[in-house]
Amino acid sequence: MRAVDIILSKRDGRTLAREEIRFFVDGVTAGTLPDYQASALLMAILLRGMTREETAWLTDAMVHSGGRVDLSGIPGVKVDKHSTGGVGDKTSLVLAPLAAACGVPVPMMSGRGLGHTGGTLDKLESIPGFRVDLSLEEMKAALARVGCAMIGQTAQIAPADKKLYALRDVTGTVESLPLISASIMSKKIAEGIDALVLDVKTGSGAFMKTDADSRALAESLVSIGNASGVKTEAIVTAMDAPLGRAVGNALEVIECIEVLKGVESADLVDVSVELAARMLVLGNVAPDRHAAEHQVRSAIASGAGLERFRRIIEAQGGDPKVVDDYARLPQAPHRHIVSAPRAGYVAGIDAELIGRASVALGAGRDRVDDPVDPAVGILLAAKPGDEVRAGDPILEVHYRDRGRLETAMRLTGRAITIDDQAPPPRRLIVGEVR
Amino acid sequence: MRAVDIILSKRDGRTLAREEIRFFVDGVTAGTLPDYQASALLMAILLRGMTREETAWLTDAMVHSGGRVDLSGIPGVKVDKHSTGGVGDKTSLVLAPLAAACGVPVPMMSGRGLGHTGGTLDKLESIPGFRVDLSLEEMKAALARVGCAMIGQTAQIAPADKKLYALRDVTGTVESLPLISASIMSKKIAEGIDALVLDVKTGSGAFMKTDADSRALAESLVSIGNASGVKTEAIVTAMDAPLGRAVGNALEVIECIEVLKGVESADLVDVSVELAARMLVLGNVAPDRHAAEHQVRSAIASGAGLERFRRIIEAQGGDPKVVDDYARLPQAPHRHIVSAPRAGYVAGIDAELIGRASVALGAGRDRVDDPVDPAVGILLAAKPGDEVRAGDPILEVHYRDRGRLETAMRLTGRAITIDDQAPPPRRLIVGEVR
Repeated sequence: MRAVDIILSKRDGRTLAREEIRFFVDGVTAGTLPDYQASALLMAILLRGMTREETAWLTDAMVHSGGRVDLSGIPGVKVDKHSTGGVGDKTSLVLAPLAAACGVPVPMMSGRGLGHTGGTLDKLESIPGFRVDLSLEEMKAALARVGCAMIGQTAQIAPADKKLYALRDVTGTVESLPLISASIMSKKIAEGIDALVLDVKTGSGAFMKTDADSRALAESLVSIGNASGVKTEAIVTAMDAPLGRAVGNALEVIECIEVLKGVESADLVDVSVELAARMLVLGNVAPDRHAAEHQVRSAIASGAGLERFRRIIEAQGGDPKVVDDYARLPQAPHRHIVSAPRAGYVAGIDAELIGRASVALGAGRDRVDDPVDPAVGILLAAKPGDEVRAGDPILEVHYRDRGRLETAMRLTGRAITIDDQAPPPRRLIVGEVR
Repeated sequence: MRAVDIILSKRDGRTLAREEIRFFVDGVTAGTLPDYQASALLMAILLRGMTREETAWLTDAMVHSGGRVDLSGIPGVKVDKHSTGGVGDKTSLVLAPLAAACGVPVPMMSGRGLGHTGGTLDKLESIPGFRVDLSLEEMKAALARVGCAMIGQTAQIAPADKKLYALRDVTGTVESLPLISASIMSKKIAEGIDALVLDVKTGSGAFMKTDADSRALAESLVSIGNASGVKTEAIVTAMDAPLGRAVGNALEVIECIEVLKGVESADLVDVSVELAARMLVLGNVAPDRHAAEHQVRSAIASGAGLERFRRIIEAQGGDPKVVDDYARLPQAPHRHIVSAPRAGYVAGIDAELIGRASVALGAGRDRVDDPVDPAVGILLAAKPGDEVRAGDPILEVHYRDRGRLETAMRLTGRAITIDDQAPPPRRLIVGEVR
């Protein structure tokens, strides 16, 4: 088999054979396939597409580029959740303790933030002492003890994906439905989970900007998951505005603790409960969605979720007292208020611009090796649909550096729209794919 | 400027800016642009295409990746000819001496054979002592003295093309009209010529298999040449069967000498005279095609062309006595006759299969660094349209190695078609583009 023949096949729009896809992924993993051939094939895949079957084969080859974690020693149906990434998207920190408190084992492997979207690992690491780099053995021990572990992907998880993603990033081949699907699902399948709930974001702050593209991605992901024996379902949720009120690592941790304490934060609670309820049904701890949602909301009301979060933090070396004393979390030295320039209704708070402003403050990163500042970020004092008077606070910016604040302000200035009429109500959960 | 943005632009079907194309070519030449980015862009160009203007910019950037030869010291309009490559395509060795004998300075830079097509340099090197590696100074001296020099491309000619071609060859990005056009024309323009006649081959033995594709290539090449100040015209000629009767280096040299001696070899003479006549008109030594053709045929009849070929050989260190004594050329030790299996008309002799059989014998190469055997090859005892009896010779195979002969025979066996009816007459010159 020759790499150039595989490239020619895909270039001319043909369907690749399973062995050809395996040859490609194995070559990338072993370093025997030159990057220049891999990138030519990636571009051909992006422009010519892949069938569902090819995408499943690609995913499978990527799973087998490393090991598949063996969680069979842990009783129960292991369920994870994955989001395609958003701004203020902190549902993992809410739903993982809740699902675990309801009896679902949650072995969660997450990523770091990149570009305008945040990452679960960065948020968790704002908790003093919290270790996301547990070994697999430590992870299994934590999972057995507290029913949940939240860690980063270990090196054995789909190493082909790491190499391919680095190459895609510099060769203009990121935005391909089959490549995105295989990248996401190979990592999830390799985790050794039994079931998966996906939160596919849609809108200005999401990777997929339109509902149609987001739905296509959701369908592709669900199809791959089910084909590989992982029971998978997806919801498509709005990411036109930030989710919840906090954007920035420690600020988001505080918001999650507040939600677990029962404080309302409408859109964040709704999405988190929806996802957690689906995890309960897939995990066979609730007979249906209605019962599941009741169990999840009860776990908030009873404080069981909050208590479980405290134990998760403790099990991973973090300081559980942050739950009661937010001053133990990193705090930015300065605050700046952005006020409404005029009276009216908040028509929109653009998620991507707020996300980029947050990166500008230091809360995120544009390159994978940039450090992040856990303390800085943006709080939304108003949400889309709220009525404001001129001078009312809309954003509260937590910053460390004046120069960075100014860059951020140029972005937030364009992010807020105020209108005379109230905007139509937002549809938060746009669709589902099972 | 970032390479990835240029890739994204072309990937999404946009037209690149002149500076972007220059950035890409300069990066490839200097080695600062990684191969994996170059190959992704090449694939995007292949699948998305390039406008005429982009192709001209690409060509120009490739010309400027090296130097442009200065031939201003040589009086007259310098004219070269280029063929897109065929089987038995030896017109250069006929027309260059004829055009030079008629007063056109011919600074010809050619390539080597690759795949099933032969190369002028390999043919010339079958003449004992013939040097195709003249320095530029030696080349100019030969051109001044005998009106013609036939050499290989020097390292200063379009170095970007060499790097890009090597990358295209292994990344499935050869078959792109703009990339092919820029590759051909950058080398020709860098030669410092004033005018160019192109012979674009069409048919089974050609790179372009259909008349429409060949015509599109001819139009692209002519457009680039004229845009860069090189007066360019093209003819499209048939390459369904080998041109002339000889395929293989020394065998082809003999056939060319025979033609220069006035021996008829219908299709070879017709194409060579057509091309040479166009060179005379472009070179301002004949007022029109009719007069030019008369001059060229007179140079055959008078022996002026043959005499000029003798002087060219001598000027480049070769043995001019080969013209009178073919035994001074390399000769294969063995001959094998392929006979007509039945009576009828020769309907076709497939050019690509004969070319591949010739490579199998050792006359050509599949990889650029393979050696070639100057002596071996195939003579056509019959041509398409000829009537044959069962047992009449059709091919005379000159071979050195029995194993190679057997491989070649498997290919020639499929190459010959004999029919009950005479085939329709071949159209040799299919079209022209000026």
